[in-house]
Amino acid sequence: MTSLEELETEETVTCLHITLYHPRQEEKQIFRNLNFLKREQLRADEVAKFGRDTNICHYNLMDSRVSRVQFALQFFRQLNNSELGFEIKNMSKRSKLIVDNLELDYLNKVDLPHKCLIRFGDYQLLIQRQDGESVDYFETRFELAQDSLLQERHLPLMQPIPESGISPSLNSQGVKPIEIDENDV
Amino acid sequence: MTSLEELETEETVTCLHITLYHPRQEEKQIFRNLNFLKREQLRADEVAKFGRDTNICHYNLMDSRVSRVQFALQFFRQLNNSELGFEIKNMSKRSKLIVDNLELDYLNKVDLPHKCLIRFGDYQLLIQRQDGESVDYFETRFELAQDSLLQERHLPLMQPIPESGISPSLNSQGVKPIEIDENDV
Repeated sequence: MTSLEELETEETVTCLHITLYHPRQEEKQIFRNLNFLKREQLRADEVAKFGRDTNICHYNLMDSRVSRVQFALQFFRQLNNSELGFEIKNMSKRSKLIVDNLELDYLNKVDLPHKCLIRFGDYQLLIQRQDGESVDYFETRFELAQDSLLQERHLPLMQPIPESGISPSLNSQGVKPIEIDENDV
Repeated sequence: MTSLEELETEETVTCLHITLYHPRQEEKQIFRNLNFLKREQLRADEVAKFGRDTNICHYNLMDSRVSRVQFALQFFRQLNNSELGFEIKNMSKRSKLIVDNLELDYLNKVDLPHKCLIRFGDYQLLIQRQDGESVDYFETRFELAQDSLLQERHLPLMQPIPESGISPSLNSQGVKPIEIDENDV
């Protein structure tokens, strides 16, 4: 047996807490391949891909409306301060990926804010980063939300949605612009 | 036979022209797994990994001094202008990756300049991007240099190399600071 003295110093591991919501999540069982409420460890050099293709994606969304690869999360260290973070990249030619209020087209990427709401189609993912020290691993942990997460983020709809419907998902949910508390701005 | 009228409009493909140099490249046959002077096509969502591990890396360097994965190149579209580009990331815990004069530590990443010299250990890679239109594919093409590429880039050694030797590779090659022509600055 290894004594406590001989063990390597235990490091905390950066964890992405991901809360999922889809208006038809129960009926369609789209999240049935995800492990909920369990921390899952990935190597730092792995790209966490979300999408329909079970051969390519670590996290599968079982829905014909989801792209083969929908988006990817990449772990990295900031160049100047060595802080750990994530980059998110839209891998779908079909749908935009909305990070809070920023629209990413195919192959666009952006640094993931510490807490943010990701949207594509009818999907909503609230991602919150819990900072850790390890540069060898990161973790993910999924939760299911019972209600839309738009309220949670108090997200204003910054631009009117065009009739042509770039974001049909928002309309189909009947989401209205949300009043913002002055403290939230 | 498909007539010319029915064919899809042909797109140009972004190509990375990569010129390689290692002082012992002939003796050690480290580049024997690379295809030289041939364009190779990769899917836009593939990450081009360079390293020793043939199971993970698309481009193999057959050298025990090279890390399992040394670095990775990722194709992306700029957020504001939709220009196509590449990001380079150091995947080696053991050695720094030097992009022109910028030192990347493990998991650091940076946008790849249009033309730049990449260095790690005794390796030198001059990468030149030839712009294309396709967002589905990119290409690589390798060439072998007979001489060190440091002259080619007129790279000044901006900082004195410490005795402790962060960059032993530079010392072992006996590289001296290069005078820069005023026109190159």
